[in-house]
Amino acid sequence: MRYGVRNDLMATVQAVKKGDIMSQIECTLDAAGKLSSVLTTDSVAELDLKPGDKVHLLIKAIHVIPAKD
Amino acid sequence: MRYGVRNDLMATVQAVKKGDIMSQIECTLDAAGKLSSVLTTDSVAELDLKPGDKVHLLIKAIHVIPAKD
Amino acid sequence: MRYGVRNDLMATVQAVKKGDIMSQIECTLDAAGKLSSVLTTDSVAELDLKPGDKVHLLIKAIHVIPAKD
Amino acid sequence: MRYGVRNDLMATVQAVKKGDIMSQIECTLDAAGKLSSVLTTDSVAELDLKPGDKVHLLIKAIHVIPAKD
Amino acid sequence: MRYGVRNDLMATVQAVKKGDIMSQIECTLDAAGKLSSVLTTDSVAELDLKPGDKVHLLIKAIHVIPAKD
Amino acid sequence: MRYGVRNDLMATVQAVKKGDIMSQIECTLDAAGKLSSVLTTDSVAELDLKPGDKVHLLIKAIHVIPAKD
Repeated sequence: MRYGVRNDLMATVQAVKKGDIMSQIECTLDAAGKLSSVLTTDSVAELDLKPGDKVHLLIKAIHVIPAKD
Repeated sequence: MRYGVRNDLMATVQAVKKGDIMSQIECTLDAAGKLSSVLTTDSVAELDLKPGDKVHLLIKAIHVIPAKD
Repeated sequence: MRYGVRNDLMATVQAVKKGDIMSQIECTLDAAGKLSSVLTTDSVAELDLKPGDKVHLLIKAIHVIPAKD
Repeated sequence: MRYGVRNDLMATVQAVKKGDIMSQIECTLDAAGKLSSVLTTDSVAELDLKPGDKVHLLIKAIHVIPAKD
Repeated sequence: MRYGVRNDLMATVQAVKKGDIMSQIECTLDAAGKLSSVLTTDSVAELDLKPGDKVHLLIKAIHVIPAKD
Repeated sequence: MRYGVRNDLMATVQAVKKGDIMSQIECTLDAAGKLSSVLTTDSVAELDLKPGDKVHLLIKAIHVIPAKD
């Protein structure tokens, strides 16, 4: 199956915390891997992003979608 | 600075592709690290997610926010 | 009222499940209708998306916004 | 493959419009089907959502993820 | 029309920049108003968020939906 | 710290409501400020958005990220 997302990282589930409507899972990545980001061209200019830069990549947990065979 | 997101991964920018409104950057993670996901409790049950499971973690590039010192 | 979203589907609420902070509603669409997706051009190439293709359209429930007269 | 999303709708691609970084695809749903929404309990109360209500379901195209076998 | 979102701010459009697939609009808020945020309880604890705190509220432009009468 | 988001508004926390997995915070903006939105060019045409227009800016609380020094 191929997905229309740029980031597909393999991971192992470490913990599952269940709530009334939402639940939270903690995973460890199996390898460092690659991550793509799409943002406005204005923001790229403002951050002066260029190859070699060290960055934090911030991702809300709600936007991380687990998929399982 | 502390952010109200669960996932804050250190990475190195490898490439920057600039478009008219949006731009795309490619990064490599500096380490494997951890990732949290929040999803509905129904989905956790449907996927029968539990510690030890191997999963894909799918993340749209639009949801990955670079931050730079 | 016109909204800056591509997808505006009419539906009927079937069930409401209330939680402490978040709630979940289940709806049935009144008609099949159309759906637009925006994704990176790289992903379109990778999936080789073209007219006539059969696809799954995956949508997190958190991204579905009900509006009521 | 099972995904950690509540909504998985089958559709047929009708058109693909390619841009420099992002692209837009138009699809028709193969059947009316069901849609789940997660929103705050405050919003459910404010909209007084209950079974039988007619609602618009608004979804930004950026949040619709195509997946293809 | 009532929407299943917590934040509905009145604003005036100042500029519109059109791209091939996506466009960007700049607005000024008509008043300071209120903003709600939903995040994990873990993040609230980690940021030790409490009444009176001064915070930045970060919002990607892709998540701001204009609606017009 | 600079973030790859267009909108960074200063605010004061007024209330914190904690749930099992998710929590909700209410804030007041310290000033009216500016807000950017990114949406499809089709939607800009459909709404006929142009400078001077009065608009609602709808933002789901899940997309508002607090950050604290």
